[in-house]
Amino acid sequence: MNESAAGSQTRMVQVRQNVLKHNDLIARVLREKFCGAGVFVVSLVSSPGAGKTAFLEKLLGMLRERGMRVAALVGDLATENDAVRLARSGAPVKQIITGTVCHLEAQMVEDAISRAEWQLAELDVLFIENVGNLVCPASYDLGEALRMVLLSVTEGEDKPLKYPSIFNTADVAVVTKMDLAAAAGCDVGLLTRNIHQVRPGMEVIETSARTHAGLEKIAELLARRRTLVK
Amino acid sequence: MNESAAGSQTRMVQVRQNVLKHNDLIARVLREKFCGAGVFVVSLVSSPGAGKTAFLEKLLGMLRERGMRVAALVGDLATENDAVRLARSGAPVKQIITGTVCHLEAQMVEDAISRAEWQLAELDVLFIENVGNLVCPASYDLGEALRMVLLSVTEGEDKPLKYPSIFNTADVAVVTKMDLAAAAGCDVGLLTRNIHQVRPGMEVIETSARTHAGLEKIAELLARRRTLVK
Repeated sequence: MNESAAGSQTRMVQVRQNVLKHNDLIARVLREKFCGAGVFVVSLVSSPGAGKTAFLEKLLGMLRERGMRVAALVGDLATENDAVRLARSGAPVKQIITGTVCHLEAQMVEDAISRAEWQLAELDVLFIENVGNLVCPASYDLGEALRMVLLSVTEGEDKPLKYPSIFNTADVAVVTKMDLAAAAGCDVGLLTRNIHQVRPGMEVIETSARTHAGLEKIAELLARRRTLVK
Repeated sequence: MNESAAGSQTRMVQVRQNVLKHNDLIARVLREKFCGAGVFVVSLVSSPGAGKTAFLEKLLGMLRERGMRVAALVGDLATENDAVRLARSGAPVKQIITGTVCHLEAQMVEDAISRAEWQLAELDVLFIENVGNLVCPASYDLGEALRMVLLSVTEGEDKPLKYPSIFNTADVAVVTKMDLAAAAGCDVGLLTRNIHQVRPGMEVIETSARTHAGLEKIAELLARRRTLVK
């Protein structure tokens, strides 16, 4: 690398560190606001197509049936498709369009909540679905109380080893599309061992939005973690 | 956003533009070098787990059986797993470990080729497998002559609409895991229409690394495009 390139890279790292530091400050204020309002905030990260939206649509419907007040923010580079899908659950939903940005930032979350004019104190759980990306969302705190990393059985058992940061910054791993495990030839035991190699002891929940398998366990997890935070 | 945040973001954009501009300069030199050596360079981009490595392993094996001199560079945040898998084809392979960087850059490609000590003039086709990411690799020219975007049938038909940049910067779309299309309930016609909505007329090839479906078409495409470039 020549001097000019090295210089650009160094400045890039410095400016990026400033942006991350600033993001952390906004995230801290958001977290205090969420705690004060008594809303439990859960973010979802995964590859594109791992099934975040299908999972969340079913989960929102289930939690609403049980009388919980839930809402969701959903990030994408383009389209309002996911907000439309999630709104079918009956929950209030707001889309965040990031344009070319490959991840959500705390400021985008704060802006979306202001635009939505939601009363946070009237919500029990707020979900934030990140842009599909197994790398960059790891670096951005969104003020959430719980971060779930979703991984589908069709992506290959090696993904935790190849994308360790996102597993290290998440609290719970959710295996999705379990109904396709046999067809995809996925060794779920190996997948779980690989998650634990990166993050020993991490809770792993196997789910299927199609069959609703594992959603009860997710609801229990949310109830348990919510009590811990409150 | 307050002034300090806006300032950081503006600086971030400026520095990022410099990095991209510098990347383009290196990519241009690489492209000239590849053309001069008569090697046809093909890059592969996709989500994590779309099946780039399985596809490439089968393709490398098939092209070698036909007497073509092929090699591959493969990018990942961590592990040498993919290089080990690709090397089973018998082709020379070099892993690029990016650490926390979510995409390959032209400089990484140049460095890897130097380290590998390959004689480019002795290669017919060089493949570059990018980090699994549907966003950032779109912005970085690697000096390739052809960019393939891969998308598996398990990711959902809406992905071209939600990640338009990567489709707009690629030359060919490859649908992978066609053997799972029925199990995943994928409407491949809709997927293709969505690709064409973003990129009218884009060539779309349906493949399966498991059944080898479509690989012959890929070999024909490479032969055809290679002749055009030469």
